[in-house]
Amino acid sequence: MRMLVLGGDGYLGWPTAMHLSAVGHDVSVVDNFARRGYDRELGVTTLVPIAPLEQRVWTWQRVTGRRIGVHIGDLTDSAFTHRVVDGVRPDAIVHFAEQRSAPFSMIDQQHAVYTQMNNVVGTLNVLYSIAQVDPRIHLIKLGTMGEYGTPNIDIEEGWLEVTHHGRTDRMLYPKRPGSFYHLSKVHDSHNIEFACRAWNLRATDLNQGIVYGQETGETASHGDLATRFDYDAVFGTVLNRLVVQAACGRPLTVYGTGNQIRGMLDIRDTVECIRLAAESPPEAGEFRVFNQFTEQFSVLELAQLIERIYPGPVRIEMMENPRAEASDHYYNAAHRRLLDLGLRPHYLSDTLLDSLFAIARRHRRHVDARLFTPTVRWTAEPDPVGPAVASLAA
Amino acid sequence: MRMLVLGGDGYLGWPTAMHLSAVGHDVSVVDNFARRGYDRELGVTTLVPIAPLEQRVWTWQRVTGRRIGVHIGDLTDSAFTHRVVDGVRPDAIVHFAEQRSAPFSMIDQQHAVYTQMNNVVGTLNVLYSIAQVDPRIHLIKLGTMGEYGTPNIDIEEGWLEVTHHGRTDRMLYPKRPGSFYHLSKVHDSHNIEFACRAWNLRATDLNQGIVYGQETGETASHGDLATRFDYDAVFGTVLNRLVVQAACGRPLTVYGTGNQIRGMLDIRDTVECIRLAAESPPEAGEFRVFNQFTEQFSVLELAQLIERIYPGPVRIEMMENPRAEASDHYYNAAHRRLLDLGLRPHYLSDTLLDSLFAIARRHRRHVDARLFTPTVRWTAEPDPVGPAVASLAA
Repeated sequence: MRMLVLGGDGYLGWPTAMHLSAVGHDVSVVDNFARRGYDRELGVTTLVPIAPLEQRVWTWQRVTGRRIGVHIGDLTDSAFTHRVVDGVRPDAIVHFAEQRSAPFSMIDQQHAVYTQMNNVVGTLNVLYSIAQVDPRIHLIKLGTMGEYGTPNIDIEEGWLEVTHHGRTDRMLYPKRPGSFYHLSKVHDSHNIEFACRAWNLRATDLNQGIVYGQETGETASHGDLATRFDYDAVFGTVLNRLVVQAACGRPLTVYGTGNQIRGMLDIRDTVECIRLAAESPPEAGEFRVFNQFTEQFSVLELAQLIERIYPGPVRIEMMENPRAEASDHYYNAAHRRLLDLGLRPHYLSDTLLDSLFAIARRHRRHVDARLFTPTVRWTAEPDPVGPAVASLAA
Repeated sequence: MRMLVLGGDGYLGWPTAMHLSAVGHDVSVVDNFARRGYDRELGVTTLVPIAPLEQRVWTWQRVTGRRIGVHIGDLTDSAFTHRVVDGVRPDAIVHFAEQRSAPFSMIDQQHAVYTQMNNVVGTLNVLYSIAQVDPRIHLIKLGTMGEYGTPNIDIEEGWLEVTHHGRTDRMLYPKRPGSFYHLSKVHDSHNIEFACRAWNLRATDLNQGIVYGQETGETASHGDLATRFDYDAVFGTVLNRLVVQAACGRPLTVYGTGNQIRGMLDIRDTVECIRLAAESPPEAGEFRVFNQFTEQFSVLELAQLIERIYPGPVRIEMMENPRAEASDHYYNAAHRRLLDLGLRPHYLSDTLLDSLFAIARRHRRHVDARLFTPTVRWTAEPDPVGPAVASLAA
């Protein structure tokens, strides 16, 4: 199949592009290097060094003999987006190309507006390009489990059968997310569902849990092919950050009660889920939703797991939660459909954490411990010169 | 109370500003004249002539002795928005300032993106301004009944108690709207609900039905105080358009089966609903939703009603539906909460239609009958030079 990976230079986009290429698909990537730009803005950097995209693609070809096409540009530029989709004419578009950090979206007003505009307009332009070029193109869109929030009922996969006053309908699952970033994905989901209905497009919305890990079969095969590894309080996902804190002998910082429960998955499962979704496309007109995670844990459970198995002293430090989120809540989310397509999950066993510990230890001399501290609070105070950002690198 | 009416130069914003002023509130309006700009872009015009905003405000002061403040600017300009909210420090902000036509949002890709950006960014800036200036300011936001779509269960007022697998939660009512315009309002609702939760703001989301009529007590009191009256296929709401067609001896055009059912209300009830919502604000942190309509009708029922009572020959013409929407569907929407606050509806009786007939007949020599024909279709074809728009004025 011909595949276009949007955001193909990012943490998950790059490993996905290689994984799809490795199994024989004809892959091109699109990126505007926004993620590398956020590094410069925040004064942070990936713990594992990453090669420039050109070099990644060149090395991939040298190692495997397979070519990955590259298109540099911004999806909010409608002409660029149309030109790429029209030029490549893919069977599937995998869309990772969004600002993906909740704290980044809450830095201040400007970052909130940027996040929603970048994500919503980019996705609108992708939808229009598909409808105009070939409505049969399958859109595989990365959403987030955070779209659902923490309802007091079981979370289903995108749709919910509701009976009310004796009548029944299949409704979109009600969403109540916790940041302007998560909201941008809710907006995307609604726009995509409409495009499926109005234009007969086919789409898979992957509501992904929190990804951990840094290595896939492909990224580990050559230093140039590594993907990024973020441990800072803005872009570092929780488990990755906790592991780096342990490796540096720093306290594992847990926000609030630590009883916030989240769906999680191994980076190797992410790339495999994308492959499975792409190779079994939905029907024309279908808006299909998969919850893309394999296990659920509370944040405190994750910290305690690391405390238990890390080969060295580990201390857990509870701190005030900078986010506005439920501290103690019910959480039970369905995640059946990717298993039905054949996913064989990598569960969070001690073995897997050992490999993460090794990565963190290998690079620990480059860790800037100040970046562990959350500086972004879920407030709306005027912040014209951006002290929240400035202080990250202060 | 001190009130800021955003979009205060528009079809409903202007009558609302006067109504609030007339009952003794201290009113200022904000507008960027976008709606007058759409007239120029589409080559259409209001059937009832309207005075410039300066003249409206001047005449209002001359007639009533009451002052209405004016701020000209664009809500997508965050500094402007903050400056106005900080300068006025209102008790309530009434937010009409959005692109409000579904067909306009579906003209082409550029109009879809414009509509979502204009509406979502404007509302984000309003939310941030409130949170920064004074979280006690009550946001009264105009949404639309179109946000709900046409579910097969009863539509409730914004929230739905859902029982699933033996557990219960109060969820946001699932939305499944039918255009990029309606979607923009769904995005707004989600953003506002989050701001209430994260920042303890208080908001009323008014999911308004289709408004008909052109006169309120205030607009009728002087020619300079008239509000606009649109009958074209892009901005004309259905009943207003059908009445003008009857007055011109043109066939009443009904899209599809005509069995699409919608909630409707008289313009005099709109302005009164806003007053009622403003004078009974929600608690801090509350996201309150009212369904703002008084009766529901199918489009065909409206046409047949006019056919029955119009003093002259009337012909109904069924035409292909340019929209993507359910043709035959269940529809039963709650609209209790504004009645509970004291709304006394003006129902669509023969008497009321007589006054609409009179307005249409008075101005019928200025009607451009070509504008009745829908030229915007719910497709996504590339449309770089905008033939859909060009043909409106062709």
